[in-house]
Amino acid sequence: MEEIKSVKNPTVRWMRTLRERKGREESGAFLVEGRKMIEEARNAGLRALCLLAVEELREFAAGFDRAALVPDFVLEAVCDTKTPQGACAAFEMPKTIPLEAAPERLVALDGVQDPGNVGTIWRTADAAGFQGILLGAGCADAMSNKVQRAAMGSGFRLPALQAANLAEALGELRRKGWKVFASALDGEDFYRRPEMGEKCILVIGSEARGISPSVREQADCLVKLPMRGGAESLNAAVAAGIMMYEMMREKQI
Amino acid sequence: MEEIKSVKNPTVRWMRTLRERKGREESGAFLVEGRKMIEEARNAGLRALCLLAVEELREFAAGFDRAALVPDFVLEAVCDTKTPQGACAAFEMPKTIPLEAAPERLVALDGVQDPGNVGTIWRTADAAGFQGILLGAGCADAMSNKVQRAAMGSGFRLPALQAANLAEALGELRRKGWKVFASALDGEDFYRRPEMGEKCILVIGSEARGISPSVREQADCLVKLPMRGGAESLNAAVAAGIMMYEMMREKQI
Repeated sequence: MEEIKSVKNPTVRWMRTLRERKGREESGAFLVEGRKMIEEARNAGLRALCLLAVEELREFAAGFDRAALVPDFVLEAVCDTKTPQGACAAFEMPKTIPLEAAPERLVALDGVQDPGNVGTIWRTADAAGFQGILLGAGCADAMSNKVQRAAMGSGFRLPALQAANLAEALGELRRKGWKVFASALDGEDFYRRPEMGEKCILVIGSEARGISPSVREQADCLVKLPMRGGAESLNAAVAAGIMMYEMMREKQI
Repeated sequence: MEEIKSVKNPTVRWMRTLRERKGREESGAFLVEGRKMIEEARNAGLRALCLLAVEELREFAAGFDRAALVPDFVLEAVCDTKTPQGACAAFEMPKTIPLEAAPERLVALDGVQDPGNVGTIWRTADAAGFQGILLGAGCADAMSNKVQRAAMGSGFRLPALQAANLAEALGELRRKGWKVFASALDGEDFYRRPEMGEKCILVIGSEARGISPSVREQADCLVKLPMRGGAESLNAAVAAGIMMYEMMREKQI
């Protein structure tokens, strides 16, 4: 197996570029850090382009078409995480779904900037049984390590749709029969919302400013979870989780 | 108004000790950072012991019995946050409730170590209408800045109960009529749980290991949210939020 001992090696240099959005877009690839996440990505059917692993994971590395053994400092130079669990790999980007092929139940994010929130909502949408995540411009980059780490593998399984203009995308889906429910602090009681139907989208707004005016115009219904104590709002990922699970409950009954 | 220009000033030195658990326990005080959080703490009835503020907040500072103006570098030396919004203050610790005075609806944390999760659950419990949070040993320190920042003021309103031995505390409450529901990956479907009654406790386990064996023994019922996609689990704060809101829904109907 190939051994790489310098951070100046061209493969190492290339993999480092995948830490940034620009590099990922140029290469059509992204970086997965840690053995568990690499296994999740393979199990989801993503194609590994190149693996770097420490000597202790030689056997694991042997399962890849292209792999190299590296010392710790090289691995750390490539990775975003401080303790990347012995391996990282460049994977081909998962295919994003075009709007025309949107699945029935979607969660849409309007400027959710915290990577932990984006990833946690992705993970929760997967667990709740939603079929896709629609990301508007201004959200944390879907394929960044922080987002994918918080998504705990759901980012490899649950498809993403990208919308340069979220309001327009929602408008298009509405014309095709989707109902749009948007979370807003002046919305009506979520538990008294009208029936949602099979095709529906839950929109979660940015942590600081909520949903944008143009997205608001596309909502069939603005909804808000009841606030019973002194709290004024909920964390975006928690609110999304409560609503998504409740929406699937409605579907089950 | 007093002006402090050195980090060697005794008040500054004392306030810095409040960043650590040991210092907080010795002084019976904790540090609140940022004007908004300071206002939340006062609105919740907590007593401010000493305020440090920058010149721009002179008027705000004048509303405190004991306040001093400081340059930015002094404020930054005291605070944990990088941009403490012009002020920080030492407050008397909020009173923790003894177990004997436990309110009816509680969320209990068994070794939840991430301060963001502890604070987010605190905030969500407040919004859901729970009446207290029971913190076992091994949780992130309740009065740390990271926990309180994530709690967004709910940490000043919703009372905390501390248990050196959470399993024993749960046992005591059970004998007094509380039902204990504990979240566990091998639990039964949360949506088919038995009726909970007025007095009940939802236990959330640690992010990595779940609930501990001794706490498990005290549970009347182990519950788990359905996992419909490929996700194996949910973020602790998201799971807690979904369950707490659902439990309050049951109560409302």
